[in-house]
Amino acid sequence: MLCFEKSEFKERIKRTKELMDQNGIEVLLATHPANLNYLTGYDGWSFYVHQGVLVLKDEDEPIWFGREQDSNGARLTTWIKKENIYGYQDDYVQSLVKHPMTYVAGILKEKGYTGRNIGVEMDNYYFTPRCLQQLKKDLPEAKFKDANRLVPLVRQIKSEQEIEYMKMASRIAENVMQVAIDYIKTGVREGDAAAAVYQAQISGTEEYTGDYTAIAPIMPSAERTSTAHLTWTDRRYEKGDVVLLELAGSKYKYHAPLSRTVFIGQLPQELAEIAKVVVDGLNKTLDFIEPGVTCEQVEEKWRESISGSKVVKESRVGYSYGLNYPPDWGEHTASLRPGDKTILKPNMTFHFMPGIWLDDFGFECSEPFRVTEDGCETFCNFPRKLFLK
Amino acid sequence: MLCFEKSEFKERIKRTKELMDQNGIEVLLATHPANLNYLTGYDGWSFYVHQGVLVLKDEDEPIWFGREQDSNGARLTTWIKKENIYGYQDDYVQSLVKHPMTYVAGILKEKGYTGRNIGVEMDNYYFTPRCLQQLKKDLPEAKFKDANRLVPLVRQIKSEQEIEYMKMASRIAENVMQVAIDYIKTGVREGDAAAAVYQAQISGTEEYTGDYTAIAPIMPSAERTSTAHLTWTDRRYEKGDVVLLELAGSKYKYHAPLSRTVFIGQLPQELAEIAKVVVDGLNKTLDFIEPGVTCEQVEEKWRESISGSKVVKESRVGYSYGLNYPPDWGEHTASLRPGDKTILKPNMTFHFMPGIWLDDFGFECSEPFRVTEDGCETFCNFPRKLFLK
Repeated sequence: MLCFEKSEFKERIKRTKELMDQNGIEVLLATHPANLNYLTGYDGWSFYVHQGVLVLKDEDEPIWFGREQDSNGARLTTWIKKENIYGYQDDYVQSLVKHPMTYVAGILKEKGYTGRNIGVEMDNYYFTPRCLQQLKKDLPEAKFKDANRLVPLVRQIKSEQEIEYMKMASRIAENVMQVAIDYIKTGVREGDAAAAVYQAQISGTEEYTGDYTAIAPIMPSAERTSTAHLTWTDRRYEKGDVVLLELAGSKYKYHAPLSRTVFIGQLPQELAEIAKVVVDGLNKTLDFIEPGVTCEQVEEKWRESISGSKVVKESRVGYSYGLNYPPDWGEHTASLRPGDKTILKPNMTFHFMPGIWLDDFGFECSEPFRVTEDGCETFCNFPRKLFLK
Repeated sequence: MLCFEKSEFKERIKRTKELMDQNGIEVLLATHPANLNYLTGYDGWSFYVHQGVLVLKDEDEPIWFGREQDSNGARLTTWIKKENIYGYQDDYVQSLVKHPMTYVAGILKEKGYTGRNIGVEMDNYYFTPRCLQQLKKDLPEAKFKDANRLVPLVRQIKSEQEIEYMKMASRIAENVMQVAIDYIKTGVREGDAAAAVYQAQISGTEEYTGDYTAIAPIMPSAERTSTAHLTWTDRRYEKGDVVLLELAGSKYKYHAPLSRTVFIGQLPQELAEIAKVVVDGLNKTLDFIEPGVTCEQVEEKWRESISGSKVVKESRVGYSYGLNYPPDWGEHTASLRPGDKTILKPNMTFHFMPGIWLDDFGFECSEPFRVTEDGCETFCNFPRKLFLK
């Protein structure tokens, strides 16, 4: 039931250990579900309790730890040997008297890894201040280092198999976007359009079904398009509505995010102009992208492409993405913005997302792409334009 | 666009401040999206960046802070005045050189709340070790206290309006479960059944649509039912499959979780016996529940009800739930398990979930309920049995 060859997982562990070495880290404790999946294959909606993976400098295989009732899930979905699956008793869950990190410290004691340099994720959703506090208490001789970006940096360049899954997700994303655009019209409830979007996301294609995405469908209408992350309501679409669609497909938790905008009725001049500027800027920037340029140069190209227009864009215009779990499909490593000197390399993957949110309405048209040997290739094949209904 | 009267929000702030007072907390910093929604009404999928609410001891209205591009979302979905909406610049997002908590410290400095006792959520998904570190650095005179359970404890007893939304979610949950049971049969892909589930969750009823749920549909089949949190695959159902269904409905992010089990084909004796024991135990325990009993007494009643049978249940049999966002609909306050001395009170709401996961298969039959004046009332009306297909 593994989505990758065992050799690919071993290669990931090898590269992770190299980065650990470079950063003086002897034990890596990763709790982010995408990092856990990347290193072990683990896939379950159990990240609402404390769980994670331990990579020990001198051990070949990583250790999975989590709640006992999820350990059969680890046996079914990971490549690691049974002895390396550690399930903690249920009374550790959301307890006032004990904490799962005491259990994790116990594993490290058993393995003789007490007074070591331990890398932890300092700014991640699934590792809390209490986790760190408990580990410090239970392992007083250990030193803790920030390894927040360590595995995400290993994840940044995708393998051929990963690219293949991202392409599968992209086929779903194209379907999903078409379903949404077809569904939206005057009198339809936003929630019914969202239901059609979900149906398309999960039913996937004839060859394969889809997985849940790390972000819910973002599909506000009317004045709710003045901001970036609202979902849907019971409201019925009306003539004169702008509808933003930031949607995605997912296969094996590899994503394809895609944004488009729909207008219902007679297109206002202001929106038409913004759409033209953004789509032109998007096209010009995509033409510019190739290995060797930096993230900030990509953003600079975008800014240059829209200069002289009325469009102002203060926020970043994209970010690296790939394998992920809620609440975000972004990898939190490279961003397309001033100051980010990350050099683009083949098989890095980005969501170029120059969303515009004004005080009354917004406009979105985005493309996910991978860096190729001599340029870039967008994952989706979907008209880059404003859709009129 | 508010889901509650302003007076209800003010009452929530009042009760929050009372608990702050009792705990010697002068500033509450809450980042959990459910706490943020509960205190301000804020509703957007922006919790993947740092955001939250500040409740200051001597200020009437709370402060919303978040990313600038989400601040129009705060204007549209909260009850608080415009001046209390603070949006930070985009270069704070996932930066290596600056952190949003510096911005939050700046708000507290502006308000004269520097050397205070600040309550923070120490074991929550959305407040990280780096957040705490940065606040300590920027507010060296402040003292930090754990307020992880503070707002969740206020949320524990629901208002009539909240109960109403939970009932609306329950109508959706009943539909969703029926759709799933109808859809599952030999030859159907698990992912297509999941797509039908999502469609039912979001399209809701004729009167209202549904919202995304805090946990994805948990619907493993065959050997994948031996664990608690696997979702779906491309696998096609076969004769002899057990299928677990832990599904939910959601309205305004108020939930109704519901679990049932389907068997395809000739029912094995062992599963039939487990189903009978669990359903009987569930019924007996529900009959026992009333205000004044404790969570551990409920679990004891359950254990007594199944004693003498072959069923063993080591994990907790339920937890309080209600308003929530991914990754969990549980409130992380009361659990139905030994040692939890929480006394049940009217309008506390629980998911009674005695899931059984054996090495080869599992069985689930659960009920969400509210404590009434003299007993308890289940939210859903759905046959409590194993479903045969």
